[in-house]
Amino acid sequence: MRLATDPSTDPAHYGFVHRVRVRFAETDAMGIVHHAAYLPYLEEARVAYLDAVGHPYASVRAEGIDFAVLEAFVRYLAPLRFDDRVDVHLAVASTTRATFQLAYLLTVDGSPRSTGVTVHGCVDPTGRPVRMPGWLRELGTAAG
Amino acid sequence: MRLATDPSTDPAHYGFVHRVRVRFAETDAMGIVHHAAYLPYLEEARVAYLDAVGHPYASVRAEGIDFAVLEAFVRYLAPLRFDDRVDVHLAVASTTRATFQLAYLLTVDGSPRSTGVTVHGCVDPTGRPVRMPGWLRELGTAAG
Amino acid sequence: MRLATDPSTDPAHYGFVHRVRVRFAETDAMGIVHHAAYLPYLEEARVAYLDAVGHPYASVRAEGIDFAVLEAFVRYLAPLRFDDRVDVHLAVASTTRATFQLAYLLTVDGSPRSTGVTVHGCVDPTGRPVRMPGWLRELGTAAG
Amino acid sequence: MRLATDPSTDPAHYGFVHRVRVRFAETDAMGIVHHAAYLPYLEEARVAYLDAVGHPYASVRAEGIDFAVLEAFVRYLAPLRFDDRVDVHLAVASTTRATFQLAYLLTVDGSPRSTGVTVHGCVDPTGRPVRMPGWLRELGTAAG
Repeated sequence: MRLATDPSTDPAHYGFVHRVRVRFAETDAMGIVHHAAYLPYLEEARVAYLDAVGHPYASVRAEGIDFAVLEAFVRYLAPLRFDDRVDVHLAVASTTRATFQLAYLLTVDGSPRSTGVTVHGCVDPTGRPVRMPGWLRELGTAAG
Repeated sequence: MRLATDPSTDPAHYGFVHRVRVRFAETDAMGIVHHAAYLPYLEEARVAYLDAVGHPYASVRAEGIDFAVLEAFVRYLAPLRFDDRVDVHLAVASTTRATFQLAYLLTVDGSPRSTGVTVHGCVDPTGRPVRMPGWLRELGTAAG
Repeated sequence: MRLATDPSTDPAHYGFVHRVRVRFAETDAMGIVHHAAYLPYLEEARVAYLDAVGHPYASVRAEGIDFAVLEAFVRYLAPLRFDDRVDVHLAVASTTRATFQLAYLLTVDGSPRSTGVTVHGCVDPTGRPVRMPGWLRELGTAAG
Repeated sequence: MRLATDPSTDPAHYGFVHRVRVRFAETDAMGIVHHAAYLPYLEEARVAYLDAVGHPYASVRAEGIDFAVLEAFVRYLAPLRFDDRVDVHLAVASTTRATFQLAYLLTVDGSPRSTGVTVHGCVDPTGRPVRMPGWLRELGTAAG
């Protein structure tokens, strides 16, 4: 397992936040958000983060780079429910030459509901690993 | 992180296997199965496993017990593609008084594609923790 | 088929609009949004519409009413792609004593991409039909 | 609306059947299968049907043809629930030079739960319409 971080439950440890609103389609018969629905929330926050740092994912992809997901981890602390406004806090946890790791904290009204980590590698459209862009390595350095 | 296991990539280490077939709806614009689609595969394998050990999840739920997901981890080793027949190997990795942990290996034609771990707690229909059924604790003991 | 409307492709025929942004998770291996992902867009627009008319769906449900989907229709005019900002235009197409019908138009930068219709009935938490609330019948009348 | 058929609720009117089993992930907070989850069931049945007639969709795609969805309609007659074994009955309803239409009936233990129709066009990998393969036109003729 490459996962190096145990994500903080303190929003102050995250430099970026993106709000999602729970869809009814994302709930399950337990009356709460299904555990698989969290990963698209993390992904949506990643995409919003890339926008915020001036490298929209659509233009990254247009340049021939995809961010493959190598590992994903979610801890479910307290349920999310239909219509919750969820703040997805995001931080670049670390980078290596070929991979980067993001940490997430999900809160509703400031109260922690979930944490997560995703590990990514840069690949070309055929799925072969490629070198990470310089701006991405710098985000990791800045985060350190 | 409660996750204790680093799941084996050797199918021989798993006592149960369930086959799923990749739906087109589960692919994404990278041409491979989206990373969030793996969690329902693991869930489907859990449900099939509970059938196999004589405790179908529908009857577990009818007795007032849900298996809340506390943590989930997936490692993506090689992509899955549309129409792949995926063998989801499953083992009970460990149990405590209140939680149990399952390990997974996904293979296609015997070749490892992904591993995963899920950690579960028993809850009542309102989400409150309840004692784990005896048969479930025994599955963990047998697995040890 | 109860569907009575052939939804207009002119945004001026719709009194409400809600924007969604395409998630990467919603794309498929054809590189476009999977056709099943449109229904949650329509649902999200319905929920936003109910907010806008002062009857949030969460409070409707708290009063013991669910809006069961009886029929759904989508016409796909032109593909949606990752990161598209999609304007979901919505109009109450008609109401009967027990059901109501919504029409939808999806546009990107003003250009039509899809139309849709959903037909709903009011049910209690056990799924039995119940009388439609007065405010909902009035929305239909106003729309007429 | 191109939809020409009002699908029969009699399984005898369908020449093909494919069984799916409801995943927990497909349920929603109403305790039933979410209405958007039906479209992947229809898709899975289409893929199984193409296998059965000797033209697996993966090989159709390898020959440069995708079956774009032009329209989709679902009528929800009675809910589906977690773990239901759903028989998806399928028939080729009609074909034109450029499109074909499939009708579906979903039953559980022989009891109708849903009907549906999908309309498809043949497109190349860039999404441009292409001529329908001969074997596909013949399936429609046989069905007529």
